[in-house]
Amino acid sequence: MLNVHQQTILRLLIASHGMSRTAIAEKMKLSKAAISTLIKEMLHAGLLEESIPESNGQGRPSVLLKMRADSAYFLGASLTGEDVHLVLIDMHGRVLASTKMALNLDPAALAHTIAVAIPPLLAQKQLSPDQLIGLGVTLSGFVDENQAVCVQSALLGWRDVPLAALLHEQTGLEISLENDAKALAVSEKIFGVAKKARNFTLITHGDGIGSAHFFQGQLHRGAHGGAGEIAHCTIEPGGRPCRCGKRGCLDTLASLTALRESMRDKALPCRDVAELEALAMKGNSAAIAILHQAGHALGLSIANIIQMNDPEMIVIAHQPNAFDGLLKTVVMQAIDSHVLPAIIGKTPISSIVIHQESWARAAASVAAYRFIVQLPD
Amino acid sequence: MLNVHQQTILRLLIASHGMSRTAIAEKMKLSKAAISTLIKEMLHAGLLEESIPESNGQGRPSVLLKMRADSAYFLGASLTGEDVHLVLIDMHGRVLASTKMALNLDPAALAHTIAVAIPPLLAQKQLSPDQLIGLGVTLSGFVDENQAVCVQSALLGWRDVPLAALLHEQTGLEISLENDAKALAVSEKIFGVAKKARNFTLITHGDGIGSAHFFQGQLHRGAHGGAGEIAHCTIEPGGRPCRCGKRGCLDTLASLTALRESMRDKALPCRDVAELEALAMKGNSAAIAILHQAGHALGLSIANIIQMNDPEMIVIAHQPNAFDGLLKTVVMQAIDSHVLPAIIGKTPISSIVIHQESWARAAASVAAYRFIVQLPD
Repeated sequence: MLNVHQQTILRLLIASHGMSRTAIAEKMKLSKAAISTLIKEMLHAGLLEESIPESNGQGRPSVLLKMRADSAYFLGASLTGEDVHLVLIDMHGRVLASTKMALNLDPAALAHTIAVAIPPLLAQKQLSPDQLIGLGVTLSGFVDENQAVCVQSALLGWRDVPLAALLHEQTGLEISLENDAKALAVSEKIFGVAKKARNFTLITHGDGIGSAHFFQGQLHRGAHGGAGEIAHCTIEPGGRPCRCGKRGCLDTLASLTALRESMRDKALPCRDVAELEALAMKGNSAAIAILHQAGHALGLSIANIIQMNDPEMIVIAHQPNAFDGLLKTVVMQAIDSHVLPAIIGKTPISSIVIHQESWARAAASVAAYRFIVQLPD
Repeated sequence: MLNVHQQTILRLLIASHGMSRTAIAEKMKLSKAAISTLIKEMLHAGLLEESIPESNGQGRPSVLLKMRADSAYFLGASLTGEDVHLVLIDMHGRVLASTKMALNLDPAALAHTIAVAIPPLLAQKQLSPDQLIGLGVTLSGFVDENQAVCVQSALLGWRDVPLAALLHEQTGLEISLENDAKALAVSEKIFGVAKKARNFTLITHGDGIGSAHFFQGQLHRGAHGGAGEIAHCTIEPGGRPCRCGKRGCLDTLASLTALRESMRDKALPCRDVAELEALAMKGNSAAIAILHQAGHALGLSIANIIQMNDPEMIVIAHQPNAFDGLLKTVVMQAIDSHVLPAIIGKTPISSIVIHQESWARAAASVAAYRFIVQLPD
C-alpha cells in the first residue's frame, strides 16, 4: 500500500489541478530526488499520470502530475429519498453509471438489494470487482465515529443499526457510512468548489436543513457525531413547535417543509418554492412575507456560523429552482446585516444545486476520502 | 533543534501526566528502540525528566517521562486591563514572578516599558536571558495570522500596529501576539482543564464576552482571525443597540457591562454581579429578571455552539464572584433547553475563575504553545 508521504502526494494533487515534482517537493519539504522516487512508484501503480502543459513561450514548461481518473473506483448509495440511488464514480468524481431501487427499511434486506445491484453496474463499464475500493452510504441521521453504525435516523426509523457489517458481509467491500450533509461536504472538498479550502462550512437546504464543517483540512464529525446540527438551533425562542421537541428551531422557519407549511397556512395557490417565488414576484404580500421570514432565519444562522467559526467560505447546497429569487436575496442581506460590520462581504458564499443523485455521488466520495486520508497502514 | 518526532513527543507529554517509553512508541507507531534514541537526546538536552511511580505490587512499574519544569521559560504580557501585567512561567505553566506597570497606549513607548521590566523579573529567579524562549502578548481585538500585528483593537484604539516588531527590537525575543480569549484557550489546552480535549470551546465572560475554539488539536484562528466572535451573534433581533453597530448582540444582553447597565436602568442598589445576586436571593424581582435575561442569552449562545460544532467540552472562564448563583443556574438550564433532547447533558461544561494576572499567564502560554507546536525547523 501507499506510504504516508504518498498519501500526502495524493492529497496535494486532489486539492490542485496538477502539480510539478518541484512544487510537490517544496510543499512537502523533501528533496526532489526523494519525491521522484515516490512518484515513480505511484506512476508504476497506475495512480498518477503526467501531462505537459502548452508552453507559454517562457522556456520549457514543467511536467504536471495528476491523479488518473481510472486509478480507483468507488460506489455510493444514498438512503435519503424514496429510492435508493447507487452510483459508480472514478477518481475524478465523475459518475460513470447509476441505478436506483426501492428503499427497503429492513437493514438486512436493504443490504441484499444493494449487493445484488453492484455487479450489473460494474459490467456496464467492464470493471472487475477488484478495481473497486469501497462503498459509501449516506443517510439522514447520526453515524458513529467508525462510520459503521447508524446510531439514529428519524427518517429511516433506525437506531443502532450496524449497516456497515451487513453490507460488508453481502458485498465484501470496505463500507463507510456518513450523514448526508457531511458526505456532501466531503464531496465538495475533494471534487468540488471547496477543493482549496481548509476551513469551510456547507449548508444543505432541502426538506430539512443540515450543515457540515471542514476544520484544519479535515471533516469535523464532533464529539458525538453531531457537528453541524444547525437545523435545531433556536432562532425564534417560543416559536413554532419542532419535531425535535423544542420550539423555534431553524428547521421550523426556513426548511422547504416549513415553507410548504406556511403556504398551506395562508392558503396560497402554490405547491413549491418556485411557485411561491412567482407569486411573490407578482406582489402577493403573504408570499413575500413567507420568503422574508425564511430567508431572514437562514441568513441569521449562517451569520452566526461566520461569527463563531470564521470559515474561508460557505457553500449553500440547495434543491433545483428552490433558492433563486427573493429567498436567496433575503438570505444574502440577512448574512450581511448580522455579521460584524468589519467583516461584511469578506466570506465568499457559493451555492450549488443538488439533485437526488448528488447524495449517492457524495456517498461515493466518502469512500474516496477514506481511501485518500485514512488508508490502512 | 528538535525534529518532528521529538515535537510530537513533547505534545504527547504535555497532554498527559507522564508517559512510558512503551506508551509513546505505541501511540506514535514507532519502534521502542527508535523512541529510546529520540528520548535520550531530549533527556540530555534537559527537556525531559524520568519519574518512577510507586509500585502497586503488580510487578515493576515502568518509568514515566515528563517535561522538566525548568526546561524552558516564557514571558507573558497582558494589555487587557488598566495595568500591563507581566509574568514569567516555567514549562509546567507555573507563574514564577510577576510585575505590573501602567498601560501606555503609544506602542513604541509600551514596548520600551515592557523591555525595561524584563531583566528585574529574570533576576528575581536568577535566570539568564538565554533561558527565555519567547514573549507572548494578549490583547482584546484582532491579530493577524502571523501573530505579529494588532489588526484592530477597540479597547486600545489601535489599527495595524506592528507590535511584535517593536517588541522584538527592544527585547531580542521571539514575540507572539494573540487575542485574549484565544490565549486563554491555549493556556487551558496546554496547562489546564482542556489538556486532553482535541475539540473544545472556551467562553470568556467579563466586561465583554469572547470565545475560542480548538479543532483537531489546533487553535482555530479563522480565515480573518475572527473565529470565536460570539459576542456579536444576534440573540434578540431588533434588541438593544450594540457598540458594533448592530442590535441585540449577545454582548448587549449578557456581558458584565450589560448587567451593570441593567442595574442602573432599574436603579437597583448594587454595583456588581455579587451584589445583584444577593438582591435576587432576597427575592427582588427586577434583579431576578436581569439575571434571567442574561443567563438565558448566554446559555442559548452556548447551546448554539454545541449544536453547530459538537465540542468535547465547554470551558466558561469568568470573573471571581460573578458566575455563581442564579446566573450560572439559568445558563445551565438554558443550555439544556436549547440543545437537541438526544444530547442534553452530554457535553461537559467546566468553569474556571480568571484574575487579572490570568491574561498575562495566558499570554506566556501562547509563547509556550508556539515553542511546542511550531518550533522552527
